[in-house]
Amino acid sequence: MPSTDASAEARVRILGIDPGSTVTGFGVLERAGGRVCHVAHGTVRPQRSACLSERLARLQAALAELIATHHPDVAVIERVFVAASPRAALVLGHARGVALAAVGAAGLPLHEYTPSQIKLAVTGSGAADKRQVQAMVQRLLALAAPPPFDAADALAAALYHGHAGPLAALLGRATVRTRGPLGPRVLVRAR
Amino acid sequence: MPSTDASAEARVRILGIDPGSTVTGFGVLERAGGRVCHVAHGTVRPQRSACLSERLARLQAALAELIATHHPDVAVIERVFVAASPRAALVLGHARGVALAAVGAAGLPLHEYTPSQIKLAVTGSGAADKRQVQAMVQRLLALAAPPPFDAADALAAALYHGHAGPLAALLGRATVRTRGPLGPRVLVRAR
Repeated sequence: MPSTDASAEARVRILGIDPGSTVTGFGVLERAGGRVCHVAHGTVRPQRSACLSERLARLQAALAELIATHHPDVAVIERVFVAASPRAALVLGHARGVALAAVGAAGLPLHEYTPSQIKLAVTGSGAADKRQVQAMVQRLLALAAPPPFDAADALAAALYHGHAGPLAALLGRATVRTRGPLGPRVLVRAR
Repeated sequence: MPSTDASAEARVRILGIDPGSTVTGFGVLERAGGRVCHVAHGTVRPQRSACLSERLARLQAALAELIATHHPDVAVIERVFVAASPRAALVLGHARGVALAAVGAAGLPLHEYTPSQIKLAVTGSGAADKRQVQAMVQRLLALAAPPPFDAADALAAALYHGHAGPLAALLGRATVRTRGPLGPRVLVRAR
């Protein structure tokens, strides 16, 4: 007899990625039956002594392996609006391009949210610092230890999608505004 | 009896890549016995209708295929110092990161030169425009038709390495300054 458990059917694995020039954070969460649970998190940190092309190749291989291991259904990455300088933007762009290509190669739908959207939802402040994001991610996911900063950012992005995604999907292309840590939500249709 | 032909031993395949947000140019040259010959060139142009992660994944796959087909020994890519804006730098960085990762994944040594170094050597002017580079690349490589602009830039980078590389290698980490189309050369040790 086929299962009629709607929550089981709606099980979604979410991969959050926070690409960086030296460290890339990742977090894997699973949303099922309205709950979001922690699966894994960590960082990819290619040797600094390696040259740029080798480091980017290692990032590419690590992300492909991560996707093969955890079988995510969707990927989430921070939208970048501005960077401190063209130089900083180029360097971030290298890692971000490799991460996006890994997501595309696996055929995963990609969702992008602004850092302030994510921070506002997770901490209650769109200008929260790394420690606040780290502390709230640890608390919301009931982790035994604080995740590394880069992994915390990736988990926060995945967490935001896990809660905001289903609501946003209901309204088509929508922006989700939240007050306080992941609620109450006000949905505003975008454009 | 083993060959004693020094020029055959020094045969080197050079892959030039000109990454771009919509079009990436490539050129493959072979240096043997002091001569540089054309092998292949073209462009990778992922569908504009595809989303960014898909386009970058296609670029990644196309470059991996190119490397598997032509077996280059080294790769050459333009060094980027500035971009018009952080936004433009980020977008260029995406494609450049994917290209660098493809080079790193194949274990190829990477050489970077500034656009003005390449243009000066190939056209006689560090401020040459795309048409001048295209015309000189066609002439220097005796191509039947002008290569597309992006492929011409990639061929120019490979051509520069083909001529400057062996001389630069003699002096260790060196910059090669040229006057006129690929000569006469003045070598200046860098740092």
